Parts: sequence; C-alpha cells; structure tokens
Amino acid sequence: MDCNRFSVCGELAELDDLRYTPAGLARVAFRIRHSSMQTEAGMVRQVNCDIPALALGTPALQVNQLQVGQRVKAEGFLAQRSMRTSQLVLHIDNIILE
Amino acid sequence: MDCNRFSVCGELAELDDLRYTPAGLARVAFRIRHSSMQTEAGMVRQVNCDIPALALGTPALQVNQLQVGQRVKAEGFLAQRSMRTSQLVLHIDNIILE
Repeated sequence: MDCNRFSVCGELAELDDLRYTPAGLARVAFRIRHSSMQTEAGMVRQVNCDIPALALGTPALQVNQLQVGQRVKAEGFLAQRSMRTSQLVLHIDNIILE
Repeated sequence: MDCNRFSVCGELAELDDLRYTPAGLARVAFRIRHSSMQTEAGMVRQVNCDIPALALGTPALQVNQLQVGQRVKAEGFLAQRSMRTSQLVLHIDNIILE
C-alpha cells in the first residue's frame, strides 16, 4: 500500500536558493502556483492553489536551473512538512518545462 | 494547463455525516491516513500523512457507504480549503476499497 502520487502543472512562484543538507545532498524549496478548470459533480469549476514543493538530490539541481515565472509540470509524493504541522509538501522526483 | 491529479491509498481515519449543499448536492468530508515507503534521492523513507478529503455528488454517496478503518484508494484533484487558508484538500472523483 504505497501509492502516493501527485502530478501538477503551474507557474514557478517562489524559488529558494540551492542549499546542501549536512549529508551533502542538494536541496531546493519552491512553490508552484496552479490554476486550472476541474470538473466536480458534473460542474466545471476554477481551481487555484499554491503547492509547496521540495526537491532533493538530482531534481534539486534541475529546479535550480529554472526561473520564477516559468511554467512547469512536476510529479512526486506528498508528505507532511514536519511532525508539528499538517501542511502538505510535494516532494518531487521529476520536473519539466511546459 | 489543467493537470492536477493526486492518487493516494490509506485508511479512512475520519468520516463526517452525509450532508447536502443548498443546491441539493450530496457532500461528505473525510480524512485518509496514509503511510508508505517512498524513495527520495536514492534513499527509502517512511511517509506518514493525513489527507483531508471531500466528496461531492455521486462520490459522496459512495464514501457514505464506507466505515472508518477501511483501506481505500482515492483519486482526484487538490484545491485550497478556502480563500482564507492555504490548506490543501483532495476533491475525489473516485474511491475504491483496497
């Protein structure tokens, strides 16, 4: 029972500096501003949301090449930001320019 | 640019009563407790998170047949709970027992 997969498109709205964990792993936090039309219960609705995201390792080096404002498609799993907060963060393993 | 798709498995951790919107649409709020192993930057890690979820219309009638503690797989899109909060909620269009 390991399914946890989120795919989202949007605009790169925030992009932190590349950092390294104590273990030497590249790490970039960023934010994807998503806007789309979705169908729910037979009705079309507008969906706008900001998705907090995190890239570790090779994906972090990819994200670090991007610019705020670019349109991307990102995929990965959702996890809680920390034990103290229920905020969900997308941990990406793939990101491409749209 | 309309991609926004989340698929998650877990245990039905909370299940509100079936209600109806002013327009007469069935509505059930619930919560999925997810636990899995995910690979990130070449390392396997444990992921535990609670996913707030919402079903409107026919999916709400499906969810209303379920019991807390059952294992489910749910799919849908993520949206903000409201204009006032950035909390993400999974709006499901499909849910099955695992």
